[in-house]
Formats: sequence, structure tokens, C-alpha cells
Amino acid sequence: MKANHSHKGTAKYIVGEVKRFDQKNEMFKRARWDPRLQADAKRFYTTVYPKNKKGYMLKDLALRDAAWYIEDVFARGCRIHNSGLLSWERKAQDAGCVPTDLKLEIHDPREMSQDIKKVAKLFGASLVGITELDRRWIYSHTFDSVTHEYKELEVPEGYQYAVVMAFEMEYNLVKASPTWLAAGTEGVEYSRMPFTASMLAQFIRDLGYKAIPCGNDTAISIPLAIDAGLGELGRNGLLITKEFGPRVRIAKVLTDLPLVPDEPADFGVTRFCEVCMRCATNCPSQAIMRGDRTTKPHDISNATGELKWPINAERCFAFWARNEGSCMNCIRVCPFNKSAGWLHDIARWLVKHTPWLDLFLVKVDDLFGYGKQTKPNFWSE
Amino acid sequence: MKANHSHKGTAKYIVGEVKRFDQKNEMFKRARWDPRLQADAKRFYTTVYPKNKKGYMLKDLALRDAAWYIEDVFARGCRIHNSGLLSWERKAQDAGCVPTDLKLEIHDPREMSQDIKKVAKLFGASLVGITELDRRWIYSHTFDSVTHEYKELEVPEGYQYAVVMAFEMEYNLVKASPTWLAAGTEGVEYSRMPFTASMLAQFIRDLGYKAIPCGNDTAISIPLAIDAGLGELGRNGLLITKEFGPRVRIAKVLTDLPLVPDEPADFGVTRFCEVCMRCATNCPSQAIMRGDRTTKPHDISNATGELKWPINAERCFAFWARNEGSCMNCIRVCPFNKSAGWLHDIARWLVKHTPWLDLFLVKVDDLFGYGKQTKPNFWSE
Repeated sequence: MKANHSHKGTAKYIVGEVKRFDQKNEMFKRARWDPRLQADAKRFYTTVYPKNKKGYMLKDLALRDAAWYIEDVFARGCRIHNSGLLSWERKAQDAGCVPTDLKLEIHDPREMSQDIKKVAKLFGASLVGITELDRRWIYSHTFDSVTHEYKELEVPEGYQYAVVMAFEMEYNLVKASPTWLAAGTEGVEYSRMPFTASMLAQFIRDLGYKAIPCGNDTAISIPLAIDAGLGELGRNGLLITKEFGPRVRIAKVLTDLPLVPDEPADFGVTRFCEVCMRCATNCPSQAIMRGDRTTKPHDISNATGELKWPINAERCFAFWARNEGSCMNCIRVCPFNKSAGWLHDIARWLVKHTPWLDLFLVKVDDLFGYGKQTKPNFWSE
Repeated sequence: MKANHSHKGTAKYIVGEVKRFDQKNEMFKRARWDPRLQADAKRFYTTVYPKNKKGYMLKDLALRDAAWYIEDVFARGCRIHNSGLLSWERKAQDAGCVPTDLKLEIHDPREMSQDIKKVAKLFGASLVGITELDRRWIYSHTFDSVTHEYKELEVPEGYQYAVVMAFEMEYNLVKASPTWLAAGTEGVEYSRMPFTASMLAQFIRDLGYKAIPCGNDTAISIPLAIDAGLGELGRNGLLITKEFGPRVRIAKVLTDLPLVPDEPADFGVTRFCEVCMRCATNCPSQAIMRGDRTTKPHDISNATGELKWPINAERCFAFWARNEGSCMNCIRVCPFNKSAGWLHDIARWLVKHTPWLDLFLVKVDDLFGYGKQTKPNFWSE
């Protein structure tokens, strides 16, 4: 473990001791064992039937489930690490692997870093950043959602870097949050995560190095993404990227390939979130804090040692249970969630350079009607 | 089997009896058993070592192999049907499937067709078309490349439609054909094929219908794609799409979901190919005919009953063997292979509406230097 983490993106949030987080305390894992949550968990995890309501009909449910198919059947990064596509070991290919006795000499880690990013994008990543692996973000223990197997986790020595990738969700489907239709784009990105991470890991192995592809498993994604320069931490507890706001999902590959870390992102998120409140106001379960940042956790689902707006995960999950599905309202309403375009580039420039305009910009965003839930209109009719 | 196929895209090429093709006679299968091809096959299928030559170095080889990872390890549609991601059966999802006792009533197959296309695109397809399944395109027999298991193939009754999807390859990587670098984009699309097809199949199953996801397996993709209105047949033996020319890979899902077939495409490909010759001139193994279309096959690898420019697959494969990898020169040089843009829209309009300009357009294309192999410059240096 390196002593000096001060150059990393998360450094500005850390004010106390950061202990490795026990995955068992993550909300979706708690739902599997914590007696306090069993009523909600039952509602969330038992078979869901379609309703006669836009966004909750059979087509929406089918879209949601089918979108999760690759993650859910062939990768299972939400359930456990080192499984299927997310295997820690190299798998033999029918068409013949690259000979295993070869190892690329890396003369220029900067060049290699650029190459890794190109390959990750060719394989489907929307954004790619690199960080030295801060082992404080590796889960102390893992918990298998299905078997409930619980054990200590160690990532072997040598995995010095994390290549962190963000996957953009569809703007128009996120607008339909919290319906099941919106979960269609969430599922697709969860399926693309192991697709891209596994292929990138195989590329690194083919160069003669080690690689561990991860979805949600093995380490906490948001701090890794912040360390890799992909964005900053928002009031909604999510990674806010410059390009897509919080409208992304995150995967990562841990490796010993010599790379060069990226610089932290800084485009004024904390300051903007201080005045905005849009996510807190629109959260259906009031799980997002309105006040100032704090180090005080709500419960065991919050990591400690960081100055941030901790999410009330129990309340959040209670709405997921009521909704019988996921919710992305705090992504939908975030003013940083915009589609591409020059007007939004200007807005982003203003957020960064004119702090005194932040509240005005939130009002303008309101005026234009951004963040409103749209009628789910994906289907033909 | 329906008697009347006259409304389909392939109808204009068919002049004799079309017999179901035996997959064993497909070139890559023949390479596994045909004594005449064993010298080439040995060169192609044994371990390949990088060379000190741009486009053939370790990074290129690693990119190529990693890009194929999902297809090669988790789907294997190039090897056999009904495997991994391309399973003919519904697989249970950890997170709970849609209840299996539900079936969506389809009041409007036209609406359903539009929905299927939206879902296929959300799941990663670049183009989507629908055709009634012409069972003449289903392989009569299958051949497992690894085990050499050979058996008759039947697709059960009821699978009345094929949803055919094209996956765009990267323009800039195809330009590096025939290097191993170019095969990077080929592999990515081969991996995306089962990703998208399997998820679309799961969506259809979730609606209460049957679905068989296929890559190269089960049925011949090009005639199915032509029947589904995705394009026309070119001199290079490939599907020529309006949007990307031949720069696509093809997957399909067979289903009993009530759908409405698409109209055949007609934008002047045959007539243009008659004067163009660009692929024939640039084929490194002279495997593409220069003369007029014919029904006469070169060998058992050509399907019969169609008026077309049959490819000399043995010559084609001989170059793949010499190249120790694939070749897409006939895709790279095709004047229909263009990136998006209004200028190319105009050119496409001219091809369709001014037959007498065809030869002139080929010359203009030459003048602009289109189709030339570029120095493989994907990597940083």
C-alpha cells in the first residue's frame, strides 16, 4: 500500500481513516441477510409481474430482464467476483491464444496508457481513466448474493493500477426513471461492463501481464473512478463525469501493466452541488441529504473517513422495493446529466469558471424543464 | 416451407434450385477436414507469433485475439450452434426472469416489428431488418470445428421469422486490412454479435415466444440479410448495405413472434458492381471474378442456384493462410464502404439514380484515393 495518496482525486474528500469496506454491508448484499430489510427485500427479489401502467408493462419488464442477461447469466459481477466473463484467470480460446511465453517490453508507460484507452473504447467503454490502485478501495470481504458465502478478499500483490471505464446510459431512457423501461439502459450497461472489461483483461494478458476484470465486484467503483480522473463526487453519492454527469455505470480492470495515472478532474461539482439540491428535492424516498457534507454515516452501508453527502441507503432501497425495480431519479434530474452539444459545453464552462452563477444556472436548468420525467415513450404505439 | 419467395430480396438472384447448404463445405470448416487444404490450414490454425512489421506486432495480435474473446470462449457461433450465449434454450437469471407463464398478445405485428428493431439497436445492432424465414438458408448439416461432429440440422417448426442484424466495423481499422490490426474490429463485431443476439432472444422469450440467437451458425447470414432488406449482393460475395457498404458483420435471431417482413433493398448494387471491379482488382489472391455473373460454382464451397459472382474460396483462404490472419481488402476498397456524411449521401443518390454515371463515380472514388490501405496507425507512437 502506498503511503501518499494526496495526488489522487479522492484525496480532497478524505478527512479521516478509510477502512476497507465490507461488501456484506453494501445495500444489495444487506438485503440478503439483514433482518431489518427482509420485508423490502422480499418485495424486491421475488418474481415481479407486469402492471397495466406505462413503463411497468410486460414489454418494459422483458426489456429490463433481457438487458441484464449477459451480466446476470454469464458474468455475475453483481453477485460475486471471479466468475464467468469476469474470471481472474486467462481462458483458452478455440482459435488459439497469443503464445503465453511472450511479454511486451514497455518502454513508455505513457504510450501504453494511451493504447489501453484506445482499446477500451474500441471494446465499448465511453470513458477511460487510469489510477494507481489504492487498496483501501478493495472490499475487505466478499459476499455471494445467492450462496451467502462470505470470505476475506485479497487481491494478490503486483496489481498496481486500475483502468477504470465509464459506460454511458441512454439519455432518453434515463428520462423515464423510475419506470422499468428506464432500467433497460441500466441493464445494457451492466451487460456491456463485463463484455468490455473481460476483453480488455484478455488484451493485457495477451501482452504478457496480469489482469482482473471487475464489474461491481472486488473494489468500490466510484472512488476508483474519481482517482482515475473520470469525475467528482456528487450530492447524490454518484460519480459525476464531465461528459455525461452521473449517467454512467462503472467497470474496472486491475493490472500490473506499467501505466501512467491520470490527473484528478476538477470542474466545480462539490461547489455546484452545495447550492443545487435538485437530486435531494426529487428523491422519492428522501434518501439524499439537503445539508452540508459530513463524515457521519447513516448506517453500516456508508463508508467512513470521507467528507461527503452520505446516502441513506435503507431509504433508497425502500423505494426500490416499493417500485419493484431500480430508480435513477437522482441521475435523471442532475443538471450535469445532459446530452452532448455546444450549449451544454458553455453551461459546463460557466459551472467551472463562474461559481457565483451556480444558483442562477440551476434556475435556468429548471426553466428549460430539464430533469423532468418524460412519459415513457420508447415503444411504438 | 412457403412456396412463394418472390417478394424477398434474394428472389432477383435465384435462377435455379437452391439446395440447403452443408456447413461442412464452408471454407473454414473444410480447412478442418479437406485433405486438399491441410497445408494452408496448418499455417492458419497453428500458433501465430508476432512479426517485426507494422500491423503484425504483439499489440496487433493481442488486440485481434482479445477482440474475439467473447465469441471464442463464451459463444462459439463460428464453431457450432446452440452454445453458450447462443443457446437455443432460455437460461434462468439470478435476478429472476420474467414469469414464464406470460405471453404478450400481439395485436399489431407492425408495431411489434418496430419495437424489436428499437430493442436490437439498444442492445448494440447497427442495422436491423426482418424477413420471413426461408428455410432454404438453414444449413442442411452442421460441423463442429473442434470435435468434427457432423450431423443433420433441423430448426423446429414455428420459427417463422428471422430478425437480421448488421454490426458496423470501424472504418479506420478496416482501412488497415489485411493486417492483424484490422482484425481487431472484425473480432469486436464477432463478439458483439452473440452479445446482442442473445439479449434480443431473451427479450423475445420474456414476451412468451421462442427465439434462437445465431452468429455465423445455423443458417447462411448473407441471403437472410438480403431477404430482410439490409442490402444487396456485391461482386465480392458480401452483403452491401446502403449505410456502411460491406463493412458489417451479421447475426440473426429466429423466432415465432408475429412480425412484418421488410421490403427488399434496391440501390443499384449489381449494376454498379458490373462496372466497378475495384474488389476484383485489389484481391490479393485473385479470388473475386472479373467477368459477368454466373451460376457455375468454383467448388463445393459455393452455393448453387444463384446468379452471382461466386468467390473462389480456396484462393481466398490461401491468402488468409499466407497472411496468418483474415483479410478484408474487398471490404476496404469497395466504393460503398464510406463513413457517414452528406457528400457520400449524394454519391449514393447518384449510384441509385444515374446508372450512366457509375464508371465515372468509380473513377472519382479512385481520384480521391478511397480504398487505399493506410499505414496501420491505431497505436500511439
